[in-house]
Amino acid sequence: MTYCVAMNLADGMLFASDSRTNAGVDQVATFRKMQRFERPGERLLVLLSAGNLATTQSVVSLLRQRALRGEAAAHILDTPSMYDAACLVGETLREIAQRDGAALSQSNIEVGSSFLLGGQIRGEPPRLFNIYPQGNFIESTDDTPYFQLGEAKYGKPIIDRVVGYRTPLEEAATCALISFDSTMKSNLSVGLPIDLLRYDRDAFDRGRHKRITEQDRYFQALHQGWGRALRKAFAALPRMDWDRAD
Amino acid sequence: MTYCVAMNLADGMLFASDSRTNAGVDQVATFRKMQRFERPGERLLVLLSAGNLATTQSVVSLLRQRALRGEAAAHILDTPSMYDAACLVGETLREIAQRDGAALSQSNIEVGSSFLLGGQIRGEPPRLFNIYPQGNFIESTDDTPYFQLGEAKYGKPIIDRVVGYRTPLEEAATCALISFDSTMKSNLSVGLPIDLLRYDRDAFDRGRHKRITEQDRYFQALHQGWGRALRKAFAALPRMDWDRAD
Repeated sequence: MTYCVAMNLADGMLFASDSRTNAGVDQVATFRKMQRFERPGERLLVLLSAGNLATTQSVVSLLRQRALRGEAAAHILDTPSMYDAACLVGETLREIAQRDGAALSQSNIEVGSSFLLGGQIRGEPPRLFNIYPQGNFIESTDDTPYFQLGEAKYGKPIIDRVVGYRTPLEEAATCALISFDSTMKSNLSVGLPIDLLRYDRDAFDRGRHKRITEQDRYFQALHQGWGRALRKAFAALPRMDWDRAD
Repeated sequence: MTYCVAMNLADGMLFASDSRTNAGVDQVATFRKMQRFERPGERLLVLLSAGNLATTQSVVSLLRQRALRGEAAAHILDTPSMYDAACLVGETLREIAQRDGAALSQSNIEVGSSFLLGGQIRGEPPRLFNIYPQGNFIESTDDTPYFQLGEAKYGKPIIDRVVGYRTPLEEAATCALISFDSTMKSNLSVGLPIDLLRYDRDAFDRGRHKRITEQDRYFQALHQGWGRALRKAFAALPRMDWDRAD
C-alpha cells in the first residue's frame, strides 16, 4: 500500500509520501512515490502516486520522456496551466490503462492508480489536484486544502484537527509527519523513508526536499514526543462517572 | 457503516458501538448494534455487530428466540463455554447466509456480517471473540486485547497508543470514546448515540450500560477537551529545521 498527503495552503504547498511497495508480505521494496517536474523560474510540479507500480512508473516515464524529447503536442513542462497539466496526467493514465488493462484483468490484477498533482506555473496561484484511476480529477479549495492517497484513514484525524488553509508550512510539515507516524504505527504496508517537499508560494524554485529515514533525529524526536504528549493529554482528561450510568 | 470496539482487559471488559445504519446517504437510521444475553450470577454475553442489518438482526433474533423457547439443542444461554457460544453465533450466521445469500447475491447485495462476542461464563475468565462473515473466529489475547469492527482505521491509532491489557476500565472507556470521536469527525457513516458497556471481571452481573447521546455532558467535555489537548500537544512539538533539508 501507500500513504501520500499534499496540502495547498496560504503560504505554499507541502507534499509527503512514503516509499513502501508491496505485493504480499514477501515482496516489500522501496520506491520513491514523489516526482518533480521543473522549469526553474517558471514552474514546479510535484506528482505523488499510489496504486499499481507498473502503471504509475509508466505514467511518470512517459510524462518525463515526452517533456525531454518534446515529442508530444503537449508535455508536462509546457502546459499553459496546472489544470492542463492535470488533464495531461489523466490522459497519460488512461493511455496506460488502455494499453495494459486487458492483459492485467485477465490475471485479475488491478491496473488502477491515483495521483496527487500539485505545483505552480507562473501566472497562476499554486494549485492541487486529486487525479482518480479513471483519469478525471478534483481540485483542492480553501475549505478542503489537502488530499490524501492510499492508507489515508489512520492519519486523517490529526490533519482534520490541526491543518487549515492558514496553517504555516512548518506546522503543516510537522502535522504531515505525525500523520505518517500514526499510519505506520497501525499499518505495516506504509513505511519509511518519507519524502517531504515544501514549496513556498511564488518561489518558482525546486522547493526544499527532505528524505526522512529511520536515522532522522527530528522524526525520532517527533515520534517519541508525540507518543508522550498524547498519553499525557489523555491522562489529563476527565474519567467517566459510571455511577451515573443507567 | 458502523464502528464497534471491544476490549478484554485485566479488570474486565469494555464494549462500545455506534448506532448509525445507512444504505446510501438518504437512508440513515438509528439501530442499536449492542445486544446482551444474560443469566444473572452465571453469565453475561455481549454481541456487537456490523454489516448487513437484515443479517445481523436475524442472527440476534434467532439466538434470542431459541434461548427463550429452549427450542434448539444448544442455545446462547446454556453453552458450556464462551468458545461454544462463539461457535453458535458463527453457525447461526452461516444459517442466515445460506438462507438469504442466493437471493441477495442476485441483486448484488452483500449478505456479509461480522460480530464481536465477549463475556464471561462461570468457571472461565472473560473471553472475547472476533467472528468473521464466514462464521470462523479468533480470540483476543493479552498481547492483542481488543478488536474493532467496521470503520476501524480512524480510531485505531489512539487505542494503539493508550490501551494495553493492564489499562483500567475507566481509562479504556475514555479511550474508546475518543476513538469514536476521531472516527465521527472524519467519517459521516458513524454517528451518535454510542452504546457503552462496562463489565467488571467476575461480577456476573449485567454490566453497566450507558447510552451516549449528543446531549451527554461527559462526551461533550471529552470532545472539546481532547481537541484542545491535541492542538496544545501539537503546538508544543519542535518544528522542522528546513535549512538542513537537502
